[in-house]
Amino acid sequence: MVATHGNLIIGQSGGATAVINASLVGAVEAALADERIDGIYGMRHGIEGLLKEDILDLRQQPAHIWSQLRYTPSAALGSCRYKLQEHDLERSIEILQRHNIRYVLYIGGNDSADTAHRLAQTAQQLGYELQTISIPKTIDNDLPLTDHCPGYGSAARFLAMATMDSTMNTISIPWHYPVKVIETMGRDAGWMVAAAALGKRDERDAPHILLLPEQPFNAERFLQQVEETYRRIGYVIVVASETIRDSKGQALGAIGQVGTDAFQHPLLSGASQYLVDLVRKELNLRARFDKPGDLQRMASNMVSSVDRDEAYLVGYRGTQAVLAGETNKMVALVRHDEPTYHCETALVDLAEVANVQRLMPAEYLDESKTMVTQAFIDYALPLIGEALPHHAQLITKG
Amino acid sequence: MVATHGNLIIGQSGGATAVINASLVGAVEAALADERIDGIYGMRHGIEGLLKEDILDLRQQPAHIWSQLRYTPSAALGSCRYKLQEHDLERSIEILQRHNIRYVLYIGGNDSADTAHRLAQTAQQLGYELQTISIPKTIDNDLPLTDHCPGYGSAARFLAMATMDSTMNTISIPWHYPVKVIETMGRDAGWMVAAAALGKRDERDAPHILLLPEQPFNAERFLQQVEETYRRIGYVIVVASETIRDSKGQALGAIGQVGTDAFQHPLLSGASQYLVDLVRKELNLRARFDKPGDLQRMASNMVSSVDRDEAYLVGYRGTQAVLAGETNKMVALVRHDEPTYHCETALVDLAEVANVQRLMPAEYLDESKTMVTQAFIDYALPLIGEALPHHAQLITKG
Repeated sequence: MVATHGNLIIGQSGGATAVINASLVGAVEAALADERIDGIYGMRHGIEGLLKEDILDLRQQPAHIWSQLRYTPSAALGSCRYKLQEHDLERSIEILQRHNIRYVLYIGGNDSADTAHRLAQTAQQLGYELQTISIPKTIDNDLPLTDHCPGYGSAARFLAMATMDSTMNTISIPWHYPVKVIETMGRDAGWMVAAAALGKRDERDAPHILLLPEQPFNAERFLQQVEETYRRIGYVIVVASETIRDSKGQALGAIGQVGTDAFQHPLLSGASQYLVDLVRKELNLRARFDKPGDLQRMASNMVSSVDRDEAYLVGYRGTQAVLAGETNKMVALVRHDEPTYHCETALVDLAEVANVQRLMPAEYLDESKTMVTQAFIDYALPLIGEALPHHAQLITKG
Repeated sequence: MVATHGNLIIGQSGGATAVINASLVGAVEAALADERIDGIYGMRHGIEGLLKEDILDLRQQPAHIWSQLRYTPSAALGSCRYKLQEHDLERSIEILQRHNIRYVLYIGGNDSADTAHRLAQTAQQLGYELQTISIPKTIDNDLPLTDHCPGYGSAARFLAMATMDSTMNTISIPWHYPVKVIETMGRDAGWMVAAAALGKRDERDAPHILLLPEQPFNAERFLQQVEETYRRIGYVIVVASETIRDSKGQALGAIGQVGTDAFQHPLLSGASQYLVDLVRKELNLRARFDKPGDLQRMASNMVSSVDRDEAYLVGYRGTQAVLAGETNKMVALVRHDEPTYHCETALVDLAEVANVQRLMPAEYLDESKTMVTQAFIDYALPLIGEALPHHAQLITKG
């Protein structure tokens, strides 16, 4: 049975992205356009705010805010990283009921999909009529059943450009710091690391070595690759996930642990610091690292227009889905390549999404497992928006 | 006496910037436009290339390359960080003489100004008729006798935007990592750190604490400031120079040294890692850092249009200066504020520039020495080009 009137609430959850607000705006604008929606509310800091009844009336916001927020990075409602406890479930439903909320849109990644899924299940068990839809969002690109995740395209664009630009500095004096490591986010999946290769046009171009979290780190092999590339080209650009692990599953940042502090807390050097130290020590090559950190998820001037439009679309479709009586689903992106790239949406079962991670498939890595294939480039390039620049170079060979 | 005909050579030196090629293009286009210049050459990797006679004939480049290079970051000729030795001086002049080079333009920072100065002196001593002009370039903004240095405006824009954007992530869940350190370059001068404050519009905005290399680091005072800001706002954004030192002049990255590796090389944690560890340990607050590294000097999509135009201008004026018979000078930028900001150029004596560092003057820092004054904002804001964005926020208070 479909509620014919009711209030809608929207939450944002997990790591923010440069386009998560576009999804919020899409959802709100679809709600503003449909008279079946009465109140339009926002959870402050996701489910954590809902549990405190920290709720914002979005109809009270000035009308012009939505067109501005569409272009503003990060989660305007505030985000959270809260694992819903058993005793939170009934209380969540009580609060929704008290505010006559019949529609819930939850924008987030894997953990957020789990939250939305459990909310939907609990409402059903309690016989509370509620439509709950999850809106995908994660720079990690690791949600299943969707071609890709909003947020990834912009982060991928950042990393591709960062690798191209930062390499230009290395090329200007290769012998100053011949080895550079660029450290990326991406949790357990290599999608972010792989994106650094989207500006690579030939075999000599950076990046030269990709270290993905799916591939256990082998120090000996890594050093061989660094040395071989250095001999051939004169410099080496390595892009590494902050979460790379050795064959025993131990994080490199923790292996690089260089003692404990006065309070016996371990001092972790981080993955890129570990790699830089390793290269210095074993190959006697000067090395340093860039760690863009939160910039890769947040750079407001590196947004992919494709990504922003798709983020808006999945938000908009989320509101349409709850109004159509759908629940316990996620809005997924479905790719069409003909005649040119575009995405439509579909609804997929949240039960099959929640807590499932989609890692990089084998066909996106070449035999070395440290470089992507053309299949990956074909997959990811349309997601990052307008073409990457060509950096001009003087002709130095007769 | 002014040479009426001769060959020109241009070199790029020191750390590359996002606009150093604009200076090269300015110099080349001025040379192409004047029939008194015969050959137009480039040193590959600055003076280091000249000493190897690694010289490029720039008249052989395709005509369209110059308009492209004007928008390409980094040093297209290649750069160097080579301290000219006594025995190199005569050899440099010999090589210039062999190629009938009468005009030298050397684009760089403090060390490069020294190189140009010594070349000019040596030519004079040897009676070789040579016009040598230095073109300023450094993100560190620490050259004297010029209002500012080409390269700084773009790096400043990057840091201002990076601070605004990265802070948006912190605000989305302040309690996740309430303290963030953003690490900047800048050698001994605080200009780069200070630039992070150019997007700060009110007292609550980030950054909250600036750690400049000119100000000895005081751990106790720093921790008090972090704690006070955390209690007041709920999160703390610190921007710190990679070169900050304690009162004994020791680099924090070296104090943070956490032992030696198997080869007895010291493992340096770096300034931001040191600060993050300190905050965790002493205040028990979760902290992390962004280290944009080479991106801050190289981000091709963060270029200040003002900076690029001025970089072109100083290059152009450099060629005009050698043709006017000037030598042993640097092209300086002279600010005019009426009716609106613009810069003209002047020539200043290289003897007064070489190896002199211009640090942040007292009036650009408030009493705390960890925040800039309005006078600094008035100085630096025109340099970063178009206005910084306003990030929209939902109204959360009734």
